[in-house]
Amino acid sequence: MSSVVESKPETDQQNVYFRCIAGCTAKHSIFDVIYTCPSCGSLLEVHHEREPLKRKNAYQWQQLFDSRASTSIWPYGSGVWGLREWVIPSLADENVVSMFEGNTNLFWAERLGKQLGIPDLWIKLCGNSHTGSFKDLGMTVLVSVVKQMMARGSSVQAVACASTGDTSAALAAYAAYAGIPAIIFLPAGKVSTAQLIQPVANGAHVLALDTDFDGCMKIVQEVTKDNSIYLANSMNSLRIEGQKTVGIEIVRQFEWEVPDWIVIPVGNLGNISALHKGFQLMIDLGLINRMPRLVAAQAAKANPFYESFKNGFKEKITMTAQDTLANAIRIGDPVSYDKAVKAIVESDGIVEQATENELAAAAAHADLTGMFTCPHTGVALAVLSKLVKKGVIKSSDKTVVISTAHGLKFTDFKVGYHESTLADVTSEYANPAVHLPANADAVKAEIEKRLKR
Amino acid sequence: MSSVVESKPETDQQNVYFRCIAGCTAKHSIFDVIYTCPSCGSLLEVHHEREPLKRKNAYQWQQLFDSRASTSIWPYGSGVWGLREWVIPSLADENVVSMFEGNTNLFWAERLGKQLGIPDLWIKLCGNSHTGSFKDLGMTVLVSVVKQMMARGSSVQAVACASTGDTSAALAAYAAYAGIPAIIFLPAGKVSTAQLIQPVANGAHVLALDTDFDGCMKIVQEVTKDNSIYLANSMNSLRIEGQKTVGIEIVRQFEWEVPDWIVIPVGNLGNISALHKGFQLMIDLGLINRMPRLVAAQAAKANPFYESFKNGFKEKITMTAQDTLANAIRIGDPVSYDKAVKAIVESDGIVEQATENELAAAAAHADLTGMFTCPHTGVALAVLSKLVKKGVIKSSDKTVVISTAHGLKFTDFKVGYHESTLADVTSEYANPAVHLPANADAVKAEIEKRLKR
Repeated sequence: MSSVVESKPETDQQNVYFRCIAGCTAKHSIFDVIYTCPSCGSLLEVHHEREPLKRKNAYQWQQLFDSRASTSIWPYGSGVWGLREWVIPSLADENVVSMFEGNTNLFWAERLGKQLGIPDLWIKLCGNSHTGSFKDLGMTVLVSVVKQMMARGSSVQAVACASTGDTSAALAAYAAYAGIPAIIFLPAGKVSTAQLIQPVANGAHVLALDTDFDGCMKIVQEVTKDNSIYLANSMNSLRIEGQKTVGIEIVRQFEWEVPDWIVIPVGNLGNISALHKGFQLMIDLGLINRMPRLVAAQAAKANPFYESFKNGFKEKITMTAQDTLANAIRIGDPVSYDKAVKAIVESDGIVEQATENELAAAAAHADLTGMFTCPHTGVALAVLSKLVKKGVIKSSDKTVVISTAHGLKFTDFKVGYHESTLADVTSEYANPAVHLPANADAVKAEIEKRLKR
Repeated sequence: MSSVVESKPETDQQNVYFRCIAGCTAKHSIFDVIYTCPSCGSLLEVHHEREPLKRKNAYQWQQLFDSRASTSIWPYGSGVWGLREWVIPSLADENVVSMFEGNTNLFWAERLGKQLGIPDLWIKLCGNSHTGSFKDLGMTVLVSVVKQMMARGSSVQAVACASTGDTSAALAAYAAYAGIPAIIFLPAGKVSTAQLIQPVANGAHVLALDTDFDGCMKIVQEVTKDNSIYLANSMNSLRIEGQKTVGIEIVRQFEWEVPDWIVIPVGNLGNISALHKGFQLMIDLGLINRMPRLVAAQAAKANPFYESFKNGFKEKITMTAQDTLANAIRIGDPVSYDKAVKAIVESDGIVEQATENELAAAAAHADLTGMFTCPHTGVALAVLSKLVKKGVIKSSDKTVVISTAHGLKFTDFKVGYHESTLADVTSEYANPAVHLPANADAVKAEIEKRLKR
């Protein structure tokens, strides 16, 4: 099952590898088909040995990364591959599957910040991307590694996931770009063509099985046993390597200044683990000297991490997640729990929750200042507002909210809000069209009334 | 009606101004509320005197623009404001309303290009942007100019347009970011909340009038007569200044090499006029020494420019445009006709058309290689394919297709395609989900069958 990397010095293999997060000592090649520790079953993580990276000093790294941002020298214009040495250094040029992910707008929320009383508020718009969500950052890494595996004789023939949302969209798009078959597993009868339109359009092999989600997972395990299909599910730690670039990119965009807070909506907890991993790497290499305080924002209808935080992480709480507008973070038993606990503890972080009404109102309010927020970003913004009101986040603090997807992926949510039809939501910011006769005076009067508001 | 620009040397006013495209000699301030030539009624254009710009040589401009791409120094990281001196030099910093528009991916369509027989094929993904279309490029300019007008005592109190598509979305978002009221006029009963969800969410004042589109325009003229509302319609030439940066950006991304062809979907013809204007400026200032050949791609159901081209532009053909999947270019009497004729003639360009079936197939085919194309991009890709088959575009030519919007704005089009329900379209690339029993052997067999395909 071991693969060999040929194009780069062997040191890359020795310096970047999978290891068990629970402390088992074996090292595994990142080009192996392996998802969890063979000894204890814990999650793996990609580990980068620090000493080789210290051959460049902090300033040299900063200069290098600054110079690559938006260069036209492929693939360094990508926010992920601009940090290549910190991601997958042993990946050959011809195997990089990149669609210019990252380098998204760090949006200065000038009007919203003033309204909330924190003028130094920034929104990292990760959804302004090829497939419309931050998942692109992880998938460029995963699909690139698979391309290299396949190019070097691995038994892998396809990539797969069991997902109906942003993950399947990103996997299908990157696989289509690379010419690698993608397979999407899902329970039959529960998902419409509209919900699946990205993987369908990108030519993924969509298999609707006569069972529920757990039943799907069982079939997936069985079908992938022979390692001919590589699983891109949330246990896969390669995606974290791409996602960790968000935090590094934010700091670079602030000219290497660390914000005081980063608020991120969380479900399976991979994204906050990734944020923390990126910051830890920057600290270890001397690029920054402190960690921002990380805030994990959960929907109240699916809040196991919040409940675990409330008990001081004494035990991991799991639950059956309820329906929520923030459906991409509707997770009752988060995969990356252990990594995320570390992220919160080591960053002096906080876990907070938002109700359906709070998340919808926060999203609608933000839209009035020029954004087009997805419900998950609404969760983060509602939590932000709560922490400001509590005095935890101070008016002078520099705060970043991670917006995980483009609102265009959630137009039903917005239509429902403005038509006042969402359950558990009072649409206080609803802005329906005004019906008027075709009469200039009536129109003028209406405009005047509104301008005075 | 004349406004004064105070913060910059008077020369900026003298060197950048509105002038009549038909040759009337008056110069008008770009901060005046003026849309057409007061003498003859022709369109205006923003003219940049060349001599002051020649104080920098070509190499100095290139170095300056290269250095600004993705800088964190505001507002130069914007693809539009990175070219500030060539756009609106007299705009004060505090009036720039920018959401990091431009600098979008110039996507190397490696697999699609090979399949079409033109391996040097690139897609400029203008839809990977804040509001999901290239209209952001023009609106940042227009709304910034309005902000400066308002800051300096103009009578303008709001911006408005009569549009139901990308234009109203971009106008509403930029106005919301700037805190300027936006008004959208449209005929009542013809447009759903879903179609209008971007301006609705961004807090625009949406007025649905009991009349048709022409009736709306009459009311708009009457209501805006006193110059209290600034019109962002397609006659407004400020938007062209932002849109012209696309061509400059493409050349910069190619390290100042000019592609052989640029294919762009056209309706009102502002975008191709803008492309040409940007290239002419680069030629005049010595940054490049030739014009790419421009291809205007029209939907066959709304093809007045194609018909005019066929008669050698002897007379402007107008028509009642028919329904088309490419609804944003469903225009029977294009506003920027004269400018676009110049663009085609001076670039040795071509106008070509695509049927509904051709545009839908081209979009679906492109998606299979990792894109998520809007129907207008489908028109451009279908035209491209036609010109390659005719031998007009050669296999060694470097070709760029402008993708004008993100496919996420057109999921109905894609769902209809993959459910084979679109009128006049045979869905040859339809990729519906495969329904299977929850049985590993059946799943394996299905996967194997598809992998062999």
